[in-house]
Amino acid sequence: MTFHDRATFPNGFTCASRNCGLKPSGKDLALFASDVDCAAAALFTRNQFPGAPVVLGRETMRGGMLRAIVANSKYSNVATGDRGLENARRMARAAAAELGTSADRVLVSSTGVIGVPLPIEKIERGLEGMKRDLTSDPFVGAEGIMTTDTHPKALSASAGAATITWIAKGAGMIEPNMATMLVYIFTDALFAAPQLDRLLRNSVHVSFNMLSVDSDTSTSDTCVLMANGLAGAVDEADFARVLTAGCIRMTETLARDGEGAKHLLRATVRGAATESEARRIAKSLVNSPLVKTMVCGADPNVGRILMAVGKCFDCTLRPESTDAWINGHPVVRGGLRLDFAEAALRAALAAETVDIGVSLGIADGTAIAYGCDLTAGYIQENAAYYSS
Amino acid sequence: MTFHDRATFPNGFTCASRNCGLKPSGKDLALFASDVDCAAAALFTRNQFPGAPVVLGRETMRGGMLRAIVANSKYSNVATGDRGLENARRMARAAAAELGTSADRVLVSSTGVIGVPLPIEKIERGLEGMKRDLTSDPFVGAEGIMTTDTHPKALSASAGAATITWIAKGAGMIEPNMATMLVYIFTDALFAAPQLDRLLRNSVHVSFNMLSVDSDTSTSDTCVLMANGLAGAVDEADFARVLTAGCIRMTETLARDGEGAKHLLRATVRGAATESEARRIAKSLVNSPLVKTMVCGADPNVGRILMAVGKCFDCTLRPESTDAWINGHPVVRGGLRLDFAEAALRAALAAETVDIGVSLGIADGTAIAYGCDLTAGYIQENAAYYSS
Repeated sequence: MTFHDRATFPNGFTCASRNCGLKPSGKDLALFASDVDCAAAALFTRNQFPGAPVVLGRETMRGGMLRAIVANSKYSNVATGDRGLENARRMARAAAAELGTSADRVLVSSTGVIGVPLPIEKIERGLEGMKRDLTSDPFVGAEGIMTTDTHPKALSASAGAATITWIAKGAGMIEPNMATMLVYIFTDALFAAPQLDRLLRNSVHVSFNMLSVDSDTSTSDTCVLMANGLAGAVDEADFARVLTAGCIRMTETLARDGEGAKHLLRATVRGAATESEARRIAKSLVNSPLVKTMVCGADPNVGRILMAVGKCFDCTLRPESTDAWINGHPVVRGGLRLDFAEAALRAALAAETVDIGVSLGIADGTAIAYGCDLTAGYIQENAAYYSS
Repeated sequence: MTFHDRATFPNGFTCASRNCGLKPSGKDLALFASDVDCAAAALFTRNQFPGAPVVLGRETMRGGMLRAIVANSKYSNVATGDRGLENARRMARAAAAELGTSADRVLVSSTGVIGVPLPIEKIERGLEGMKRDLTSDPFVGAEGIMTTDTHPKALSASAGAATITWIAKGAGMIEPNMATMLVYIFTDALFAAPQLDRLLRNSVHVSFNMLSVDSDTSTSDTCVLMANGLAGAVDEADFARVLTAGCIRMTETLARDGEGAKHLLRATVRGAATESEARRIAKSLVNSPLVKTMVCGADPNVGRILMAVGKCFDCTLRPESTDAWINGHPVVRGGLRLDFAEAALRAALAAETVDIGVSLGIADGTAIAYGCDLTAGYIQENAAYYSS
């Protein structure tokens, strides 16, 4: 499969974005709409302090049916209590009124600073007349949900006669862990909600759930798949394959744009006792500040790979059967650091994508995790996020 | 209890340090000796790729008896295989020969870069005649085990007629988790090895095991308690109290000197379902890069506290009973962010010690975790650690 050169929407989907006054400038309000009702599935954050939009979203998704998504950036409407929940409902109602549908078919997302009341009147005013702005360019909507992202994120691919389009945001506070950041996936394929739910869970398991920018799990993570059926039925296996490939590609795009990041860091673990152990070890590698700074500095301090594997106390490990590679260069064999050509390894570590491979020689558990390097840019961005 | 103004050794303990050519300059070899045999207890890293000195140390500690500790910095002798283990044995033999004891009474530590063979001949030559340098100043030995530490770390206090002295190193790759970094504790109190073991475990549980500089668990962590009995028997409860207080003080010293750190970050969790959940939530707070950068920038982005608590998926939490404070300023009540005086909060966050208090209102599980802020200095130090 190949991705389209430039992301387009499936039949019947459009979006719009505006500045409604939450940010001093730049888009802060986005609307994604389908011409007809869609079967839908969604996954939300496992953080135990979920935002009001997540609380409302769980309620909305009980119907398994969506017509639109309305999202704002700058404020996440988290830790805002009953008033926050009422503001999320008002946001759904305002979007429903604008689009001529009912509030229970509108999913609401908010992303940004935690704990600040949502300026709901600005959002309600901003939504007025927004239907007229609806366009077929997914990047327009992607722009409206950006926070610290350096670019809008959209992607599309074909699955038989249908199209799948992914729109996402997220650069920090990202270790979704059974849910995701904000990811909206649209398709014109025809599937019922329970099928979509299964398809979405399977794809997210190997993509967004294996992503960590900074080990912090957002209170707002939401991933939605909306299918309006306009392209009719498509082969499910084929659709699943494309869906997963796109989710992985979008995961890499989010990792690459991690706050301050200059490198995509990918950890592939093979030969683990179970898939679950492989996932933990791969996550330990992309989450280790010392592995991340090694990549930042292209510093061949490869012992840190063993450290990050070995700190998974409850996993089955055998030093004598543990091998590791960096972009194909063997650096550890049988638990021992190999002599390696340092200049070649420095060059490998300086590549835009750094692949750490670890083979454990225990059984056949496999996993791939996605992350990025840790740079001074991350510190700078997050030491003054609230104030700026 | 109070700590001594300047650390001194208990009766019968001395130390020395030298440059033996591992580092271009600065001390890289340290020797800690008792005039007589000591009952001893030790805890080692749970990392599954332990260094050769840890493997040998577990063997040595079976006897429950120590006379000396020999330690080098710059190279950790980890991931070095059979030859590494033989080098650790040679290091014990050389120190034993110099001190006139047997190798099975010498604990060996190595700290520094992982995976580089130990230049054992330099260490053997360095140990020759080192007995003559033995001094009663604990800082001399502390200097010999420094890596990225900005100052040598030693501390002493009285427990009845006995003295307890702590010597430690460690600034990065620190989340000991059931073991510690390098911490040597000396006393002239009289205790048998099994008593020492129990005392040490209890103290480490609430001190070094609640420390995290960067969530990375070293392959070399070692904590030893040596008691030579020269002061005779002392009250055990009194001794335990002083031992724990000193371990906590040394934990704070290590956190304060975390790589790049400008602040001690202390998280106190009360009202958790169990002590174990309180420990996990307190650790989650001091390990969160977004909480750490908030402290770095004195940026009152207090929603991050809820995020870091809420990402403990398996803990019992009730947003409506969750309160939080920063240096005494209430910032969250009942899961909602409070309106607070921003300037006062900024000032509180700029204090050298930042105390985050969280009350969960579930039951009476309590824990305190120790960490530091995350700064550009940490990145700088670790992006070129191997090369520099």
